[in-house]
Amino acid sequence: MVGKVTVLRIGHRYVRDYRVTMHTALVARAFGAHKMLLASYDDTIIKGIEEVNARWGGYFKVTCIGDRWLEYIKGFKSSGSLIVHLTMYGLHIDDTIDDIRRRFSSSDIMVVIGAEKVPRVVYDISDYNVAIGNQPHSEIAALALFLDRLFEGKELKIDFRGRLRIIPTARGKRVIEMSDEYERQDT
Amino acid sequence: MVGKVTVLRIGHRYVRDYRVTMHTALVARAFGAHKMLLASYDDTIIKGIEEVNARWGGYFKVTCIGDRWLEYIKGFKSSGSLIVHLTMYGLHIDDTIDDIRRRFSSSDIMVVIGAEKVPRVVYDISDYNVAIGNQPHSEIAALALFLDRLFEGKELKIDFRGRLRIIPTARGKRVIEMSDEYERQDT
Repeated sequence: MVGKVTVLRIGHRYVRDYRVTMHTALVARAFGAHKMLLASYDDTIIKGIEEVNARWGGYFKVTCIGDRWLEYIKGFKSSGSLIVHLTMYGLHIDDTIDDIRRRFSSSDIMVVIGAEKVPRVVYDISDYNVAIGNQPHSEIAALALFLDRLFEGKELKIDFRGRLRIIPTARGKRVIEMSDEYERQDT
Repeated sequence: MVGKVTVLRIGHRYVRDYRVTMHTALVARAFGAHKMLLASYDDTIIKGIEEVNARWGGYFKVTCIGDRWLEYIKGFKSSGSLIVHLTMYGLHIDDTIDDIRRRFSSSDIMVVIGAEKVPRVVYDISDYNVAIGNQPHSEIAALALFLDRLFEGKELKIDFRGRLRIIPTARGKRVIEMSDEYERQDT
Protein backbone atom coordinates (compact mmCIF):
# COMPACT_ATOMS: atom_id res chain seq x y z
CA MET A 1 0.00 0.00 0.00
CA VAL A 2 1.50 3.34 -1.04
CA GLY A 3 0.25 6.92 -1.04
CA LYS A 4 -0.72 9.18 -3.89
CA VAL A 5 1.57 11.53 -5.75
CA THR A 6 0.54 15.06 -6.71
CA VAL A 7 2.88 17.09 -8.91
CA LEU A 8 2.97 20.85 -8.42
CA ARG A 9 4.37 22.69 -11.41
CA ILE A 10 5.41 26.28 -10.69
CA GLY A 11 6.97 28.87 -13.00
CA HIS A 12 4.81 28.07 -16.02
CA ARG A 13 4.53 30.97 -18.49
CA TYR A 14 1.49 30.93 -20.75
CA VAL A 15 2.17 30.01 -24.43
CA ARG A 16 5.96 30.03 -24.07
CA ASP A 17 6.01 27.02 -21.74
CA TYR A 18 3.14 25.08 -23.29
CA ARG A 19 5.22 22.26 -24.70
CA VAL A 20 7.51 21.79 -21.71
CA THR A 21 4.58 21.84 -19.28
CA MET A 22 2.63 19.45 -21.50
CA HIS A 23 5.59 17.05 -21.46
CA THR A 24 5.67 17.42 -17.67
CA ALA A 25 1.98 16.60 -17.37
CA LEU A 26 2.29 13.60 -19.70
CA VAL A 27 5.22 12.27 -17.70
CA ALA A 28 3.35 12.79 -14.42
CA ARG A 29 0.42 10.81 -15.85
CA ALA A 30 2.44 8.03 -17.50
CA PHE A 31 4.74 7.56 -14.49
CA GLY A 32 1.97 7.04 -11.97
CA ALA A 33 1.20 10.44 -10.41
CA HIS A 34 -2.40 11.04 -9.42
CA LYS A 35 -2.76 14.65 -10.54
CA MET A 36 -0.90 17.83 -11.40
CA LEU A 37 -1.49 21.28 -10.00
CA LEU A 38 -0.41 24.02 -12.39
CA ALA A 39 0.49 27.35 -10.78
CA SER A 40 -0.93 29.33 -13.68
CA TYR A 41 -4.09 29.43 -15.76
CA ASP A 42 -3.78 27.47 -18.98
CA ASP A 43 -6.77 25.52 -20.27
CA THR A 44 -4.76 24.14 -23.19
CA ILE A 45 -2.87 21.85 -20.79
CA ILE A 46 -6.09 20.63 -19.16
CA LYS A 47 -7.67 19.93 -22.56
CA GLY A 48 -4.54 18.22 -23.84
CA ILE A 49 -4.55 15.79 -20.92
CA GLU A 50 -8.29 15.15 -21.21
CA GLU A 51 -7.74 14.13 -24.83
CA VAL A 52 -4.93 11.79 -23.82
CA ASN A 53 -7.09 10.19 -21.12
CA ALA A 54 -9.97 9.74 -23.57
CA ARG A 55 -7.73 7.76 -25.91
CA TRP A 56 -5.19 6.13 -23.64
CA GLY A 57 -7.10 5.75 -20.40
CA GLY A 58 -6.71 6.61 -16.75
CA TYR A 59 -7.98 9.40 -14.55
CA PHE A 60 -5.00 11.76 -14.35
CA LYS A 61 -6.14 15.32 -13.80
CA VAL A 62 -4.62 18.78 -14.19
CA THR A 63 -5.97 21.64 -12.08
CA CYS A 64 -4.93 25.27 -12.53
CA ILE A 65 -4.37 27.08 -9.22
CA GLY A 66 -2.97 30.42 -10.44
CA ASP A 67 -0.51 32.01 -8.03
CA ARG A 68 -1.82 30.27 -4.91
CA TRP A 69 0.89 27.60 -5.00
CA LEU A 70 2.37 28.40 -1.57
CA GLU A 71 -1.05 28.06 0.01
CA TYR A 72 -1.34 24.63 -1.64
CA ILE A 73 2.08 23.49 -0.45
CA LYS A 74 1.17 24.53 3.11
CA GLY A 75 -2.21 22.80 2.83
CA PHE A 76 -0.68 19.53 1.59
CA LYS A 77 2.00 19.68 4.26
CA SER A 78 -0.45 20.25 7.09
CA SER A 79 -2.52 17.30 5.82
CA GLY A 80 0.50 15.05 6.22
CA SER A 81 1.91 14.97 2.67
CA LEU A 82 5.65 14.85 2.26
CA ILE A 83 6.87 17.81 0.19
CA VAL A 84 9.64 16.80 -2.21
CA HIS A 85 11.23 19.56 -4.28
CA LEU A 86 13.33 18.47 -7.24
CA THR A 87 16.37 20.71 -7.69
CA MET A 88 19.92 20.25 -8.94
CA TYR A 89 21.13 21.85 -5.68
CA GLY A 90 19.54 19.28 -3.41
CA LEU A 91 20.71 16.02 -1.85
CA HIS A 92 21.44 13.26 -4.32
CA ILE A 93 18.49 10.99 -5.14
CA ASP A 94 20.63 7.95 -4.23
CA ASP A 95 21.03 9.31 -0.69
CA THR A 96 17.37 10.19 -0.14
CA ILE A 97 15.12 7.80 -2.05
CA ASP A 98 15.12 4.94 0.47
CA ASP A 99 13.99 7.28 3.20
CA ILE A 100 11.32 8.88 1.00
CA ARG A 101 10.05 5.50 -0.20
CA ARG A 102 9.78 4.22 3.36
CA ARG A 103 7.71 7.26 4.37
CA PHE A 104 5.63 6.97 1.18
CA SER A 105 4.16 3.74 2.56
CA SER A 106 2.12 5.87 4.98
CA SER A 107 2.09 9.38 3.42
CA ASP A 108 1.10 11.04 0.19
CA ILE A 109 3.75 13.01 -1.65
CA MET A 110 3.65 16.40 -3.32
CA VAL A 111 6.48 16.73 -5.87
CA VAL A 112 7.33 20.37 -6.59
CA ILE A 113 9.04 21.19 -9.87
CA GLY A 114 9.94 24.67 -10.99
CA ALA A 115 11.24 26.35 -14.08
CA GLU A 116 14.38 28.47 -14.06
CA LYS A 117 14.03 30.40 -10.78
CA VAL A 118 12.43 28.86 -7.72
CA PRO A 119 11.71 31.09 -4.69
CA ARG A 120 13.75 30.37 -1.57
CA VAL A 121 10.63 29.53 0.42
CA VAL A 122 10.23 26.32 -1.60
CA TYR A 123 13.65 25.09 -0.45
CA ASP A 124 12.77 25.95 3.14
CA ILE A 125 9.29 24.47 3.33
CA SER A 126 10.13 21.21 1.54
CA ASP A 127 10.79 18.05 3.54
CA TYR A 128 13.31 17.00 0.92
CA ASN A 129 15.22 18.95 -1.72
CA VAL A 130 16.30 16.19 -4.08
CA ALA A 131 18.81 16.36 -6.93
CA ILE A 132 18.53 13.95 -9.85
CA GLY A 133 22.26 14.35 -10.17
CA ASN A 134 23.88 17.74 -9.59
CA GLN A 135 24.12 18.80 -13.24
CA PRO A 136 21.67 21.08 -15.04
CA HIS A 137 19.22 19.16 -17.20
CA SER A 138 15.44 19.13 -17.33
CA GLU A 139 12.55 19.16 -14.88
CA ILE A 140 10.81 16.70 -17.20
CA ALA A 141 13.66 14.21 -16.89
CA ALA A 142 13.97 14.90 -13.17
CA LEU A 143 10.30 14.12 -12.60
CA ALA A 144 10.52 10.92 -14.67
CA LEU A 145 13.59 9.68 -12.80
CA PHE A 146 12.17 10.55 -9.39
CA LEU A 147 8.89 8.72 -10.05
CA ASP A 148 10.77 5.79 -11.54
CA ARG A 149 12.92 5.47 -8.41
CA LEU A 150 9.91 5.96 -6.15
CA PHE A 151 7.84 3.26 -7.87
CA GLU A 152 10.89 1.07 -8.57
CA GLY A 153 10.17 0.75 -12.27
CA LYS A 154 6.68 -0.68 -11.78
CA GLU A 155 5.13 2.53 -13.15
CA LEU A 156 6.15 1.51 -16.68
CA LYS A 157 3.73 -1.44 -16.46
CA ILE A 158 0.61 0.42 -15.26
CA ASP A 159 -2.52 -0.75 -17.09
CA PHE A 160 -4.42 2.42 -18.00
CA ARG A 161 -7.29 0.43 -19.56
CA GLY A 162 -7.56 2.91 -22.40
CA ARG A 163 -9.68 2.76 -25.53
CA LEU A 164 -6.42 2.52 -27.47
CA ARG A 165 -3.78 0.02 -26.45
CA ILE A 166 -0.37 -0.61 -27.92
CA ILE A 167 0.82 -4.13 -28.64
CA PRO A 168 4.58 -3.82 -28.14
CA THR A 169 6.33 -4.80 -31.33
CA ALA A 170 9.85 -5.04 -32.68
CA ARG A 171 9.06 -3.07 -35.88
CA GLY A 172 6.34 -0.55 -36.71
CA LYS A 173 3.16 0.22 -34.83
CA ARG A 174 0.42 -2.06 -33.55
CA VAL A 175 -2.48 -0.37 -31.82
CA ILE A 176 -5.77 -2.02 -30.96
CA GLU A 177 -8.98 -0.17 -30.30
CA MET A 178 -11.18 -1.63 -27.60
CA SER A 179 -14.85 -1.88 -28.48
CA ASP A 180 -17.53 -0.95 -25.93
CA GLU A 181 -18.48 -4.60 -25.83
CA TYR A 182 -14.93 -5.65 -25.00
CA GLU A 183 -14.82 -3.03 -22.30
CA ARG A 184 -18.03 -4.35 -20.81
CA GLN A 185 -16.79 -7.94 -20.80
CA ASP A 186 -13.46 -6.91 -19.43
CA THR A 187 -14.59 -4.74 -16.54
CA MET B 1 34.61 -1.03 -20.72
CA VAL B 2 31.54 0.28 -22.53
CA GLY B 3 30.97 2.06 -25.81
CA LYS B 4 29.95 5.62 -26.56
CA VAL B 5 26.42 6.90 -26.93
CA THR B 6 25.42 9.35 -29.66
CA VAL B 7 21.91 10.79 -29.59
CA LEU B 8 20.26 11.62 -32.92
CA ARG B 9 17.40 14.08 -32.56
CA ILE B 10 15.08 14.22 -35.59
CA GLY B 11 11.95 16.29 -36.16
CA HIS B 12 13.28 19.52 -34.61
CA ARG B 13 11.51 22.63 -35.86
CA TYR B 14 13.46 25.87 -35.59
CA VAL B 15 12.28 28.25 -32.83
CA ARG B 16 9.16 26.26 -31.96
CA ASP B 17 11.14 23.31 -30.59
CA TYR B 18 14.01 25.23 -29.04
CA ARG B 19 13.14 24.50 -25.44
CA VAL B 20 12.26 20.83 -25.88
CA THR B 21 15.40 20.18 -27.94
CA MET B 22 17.52 22.09 -25.42
CA HIS B 23 16.11 19.89 -22.63
CA THR B 24 16.94 16.87 -24.78
CA ALA B 25 20.52 18.02 -25.28
CA LEU B 26 20.96 18.78 -21.57
CA VAL B 27 19.65 15.35 -20.65
CA ALA B 28 21.92 13.67 -23.19
CA ARG B 29 24.89 15.51 -21.68
CA ALA B 30 23.99 15.02 -18.01
CA PHE B 31 23.10 11.34 -18.47
CA GLY B 32 26.38 10.36 -20.06
CA ALA B 33 25.93 10.55 -23.84
CA HIS B 34 28.96 11.58 -25.83
CA LYS B 35 27.33 13.88 -28.36
CA MET B 36 24.06 14.81 -30.04
CA LEU B 37 23.38 15.10 -33.74
CA LEU B 38 20.56 17.51 -34.51
CA ALA B 39 18.73 16.89 -37.81
CA SER B 40 18.20 20.60 -38.40
CA TYR B 41 20.26 23.78 -38.35
CA ASP B 42 19.99 25.64 -35.06
CA ASP B 43 23.04 27.39 -33.65
CA THR B 44 21.17 28.43 -30.52
CA ILE B 45 21.27 24.82 -29.29
CA ILE B 46 25.00 24.53 -29.98
CA LYS B 47 25.71 27.81 -28.17
CA GLY B 48 23.48 26.87 -25.25
CA ILE B 49 25.40 23.64 -24.70
CA GLU B 50 28.77 25.36 -25.07
CA GLU B 51 27.77 27.76 -22.29
CA VAL B 52 26.74 24.87 -20.08
CA ASN B 53 30.04 23.07 -20.71
CA ALA B 54 32.00 26.24 -19.93
CA ARG B 55 30.37 26.50 -16.51
CA TRP B 56 29.58 22.92 -15.57
CA GLY B 57 32.28 20.98 -17.40
CA GLY B 58 32.56 18.08 -19.78
CA TYR B 59 32.96 17.79 -23.52
CA PHE B 60 29.45 17.07 -24.73
CA LYS B 61 28.94 18.33 -28.26
CA VAL B 62 25.99 19.13 -30.49
CA THR B 63 26.41 18.97 -34.26
CA CYS B 64 23.78 20.11 -36.76
CA ILE B 65 23.40 17.73 -39.70
CA GLY B 66 20.37 19.21 -41.46
CA ASP B 67 18.24 16.65 -43.29
CA ARG B 68 21.01 14.09 -43.75
CA TRP B 69 19.90 12.04 -40.74
CA LEU B 70 19.27 8.79 -42.67
CA GLU B 71 22.75 8.92 -44.12
CA TYR B 72 24.09 9.28 -40.56
CA ILE B 73 22.04 6.35 -39.26
CA LYS B 74 23.34 4.18 -42.11
CA GLY B 75 26.89 5.37 -41.49
CA PHE B 76 26.75 4.59 -37.77
CA LYS B 77 25.15 1.23 -38.45
CA SER B 78 27.76 0.20 -40.98
CA SER B 79 30.51 1.20 -38.51
CA GLY B 80 29.08 -1.27 -36.02
CA SER B 81 26.94 0.98 -33.81
CA LEU B 82 23.69 -0.42 -32.47
CA ILE B 83 20.76 1.74 -33.56
CA VAL B 84 18.19 2.11 -30.76
CA HIS B 85 15.01 4.03 -31.59
CA LEU B 86 12.91 5.14 -28.63
CA THR B 87 9.19 4.90 -29.41
CA MET B 88 6.05 4.15 -27.41
CA TYR B 89 5.21 1.47 -30.01
CA GLY B 90 8.36 -0.56 -29.45
CA LEU B 91 9.27 -3.48 -27.21
CA HIS B 92 9.25 -2.70 -23.50
CA ILE B 93 12.53 -1.48 -22.06
CA ASP B 94 12.36 -4.21 -19.40
CA ASP B 95 12.40 -6.84 -22.14
CA THR B 96 15.24 -5.34 -24.17
CA ILE B 97 17.69 -3.55 -21.89
CA ASP B 98 19.69 -6.59 -20.76
CA ASP B 99 20.35 -7.54 -24.37
CA ILE B 100 21.27 -3.96 -25.34
CA ARG B 101 23.54 -3.54 -22.32
CA ARG B 102 25.34 -6.79 -23.10
CA ARG B 103 26.00 -5.67 -26.67
CA PHE B 104 27.01 -2.19 -25.44
CA SER B 105 30.09 -3.74 -23.87
CA SER B 106 31.53 -4.09 -27.38
CA SER B 107 29.54 -1.60 -29.52
CA ASP B 108 28.71 2.07 -29.59
CA ILE B 109 25.06 3.04 -29.55
CA MET B 110 23.13 5.60 -31.55
CA VAL B 111 19.87 6.53 -29.79
CA VAL B 112 17.30 7.96 -32.20
CA ILE B 113 14.57 10.17 -30.78
CA GLY B 114 11.90 11.85 -32.85
CA ALA B 115 9.19 14.40 -32.34
CA GLU B 116 5.55 13.66 -33.24
CA LYS B 117 5.91 11.77 -36.52
CA VAL B 118 8.81 9.45 -37.22
CA PRO B 119 9.26 8.04 -40.74
CA ARG B 120 8.74 4.29 -41.10
CA VAL B 121 12.32 3.77 -42.27
CA VAL B 122 13.55 4.56 -38.74
CA TYR B 123 11.53 1.64 -37.34
CA ASP B 124 12.91 -0.64 -40.05
CA ILE B 125 16.56 0.29 -39.89
CA SER B 126 16.84 0.29 -36.10
CA ASP B 127 18.26 -2.73 -34.30
CA TYR B 128 15.88 -2.07 -31.42
CA ASN B 129 12.63 -0.10 -31.21
CA VAL B 130 12.31 0.41 -27.48
CA ALA B 131 9.32 1.68 -25.51
CA ILE B 132 9.84 3.39 -22.16
CA GLY B 133 6.39 2.11 -21.30
CA ASN B 134 3.64 2.06 -23.93
CA GLN B 135 1.94 5.30 -22.94
CA PRO B 136 2.48 8.68 -24.62
CA HIS B 137 4.82 10.92 -22.64
CA SER B 138 8.00 12.73 -23.61
CA GLU B 139 11.10 12.04 -25.65
CA ILE B 140 13.06 13.90 -22.96
CA ALA B 141 11.86 11.51 -20.27
CA ALA B 142 12.33 8.53 -22.59
CA LEU B 143 15.95 9.47 -23.25
CA ALA B 144 16.64 9.99 -19.54
CA LEU B 145 15.13 6.64 -18.57
CA PHE B 146 16.88 4.78 -21.37
CA LEU B 147 20.31 6.18 -20.46
CA ASP B 148 19.63 5.57 -16.76
CA ARG B 149 18.84 1.91 -17.44
CA LEU B 150 21.79 1.57 -19.81
CA PHE B 151 24.29 3.02 -17.33
CA GLU B 152 22.51 1.47 -14.33
CA GLY B 153 22.22 4.74 -12.43
CA LYS B 154 25.96 5.42 -12.49
CA GLU B 155 25.42 8.36 -14.88
CA LEU B 156 24.05 10.45 -12.01
CA LYS B 157 27.49 10.37 -10.38
CA ILE B 158 29.61 11.42 -13.37
CA ASP B 159 32.28 13.96 -12.38
CA PHE B 160 32.18 16.64 -15.08
CA ARG B 161 35.09 18.55 -13.47
CA GLY B 162 33.40 21.86 -14.20
CA ARG B 163 34.40 25.35 -13.13
CA LEU B 164 31.20 25.39 -11.06
CA ARG B 165 30.38 22.52 -8.76
CA ILE B 166 27.37 21.96 -6.57
CA ILE B 167 27.77 20.83 -2.98
CA PRO B 168 24.58 18.81 -2.43
CA THR B 169 22.66 20.32 0.44
CA ALA B 170 19.39 19.77 2.30
CA ARG B 171 18.29 23.43 2.03
CA GLY B 172 19.20 26.21 -0.41
CA LYS B 173 22.09 26.34 -2.88
CA ARG B 174 25.79 25.74 -2.38
CA VAL B 175 27.97 26.20 -5.44
CA ILE B 176 31.75 26.44 -5.43
CA GLU B 177 33.81 27.97 -8.19
CA MET B 178 37.08 26.27 -8.95
CA SER B 179 40.08 28.55 -9.43
CA ASP B 180 42.51 27.98 -12.30
CA GLU B 181 45.11 27.04 -9.73
CA TYR B 182 42.87 24.37 -8.24
CA GLU B 183 42.22 23.00 -11.69
CA ARG B 184 45.94 22.76 -12.37
CA GLN B 185 46.64 20.98 -9.10
CA ASP B 186 43.70 18.70 -9.55
CA THR B 187 44.38 17.50 -13.08
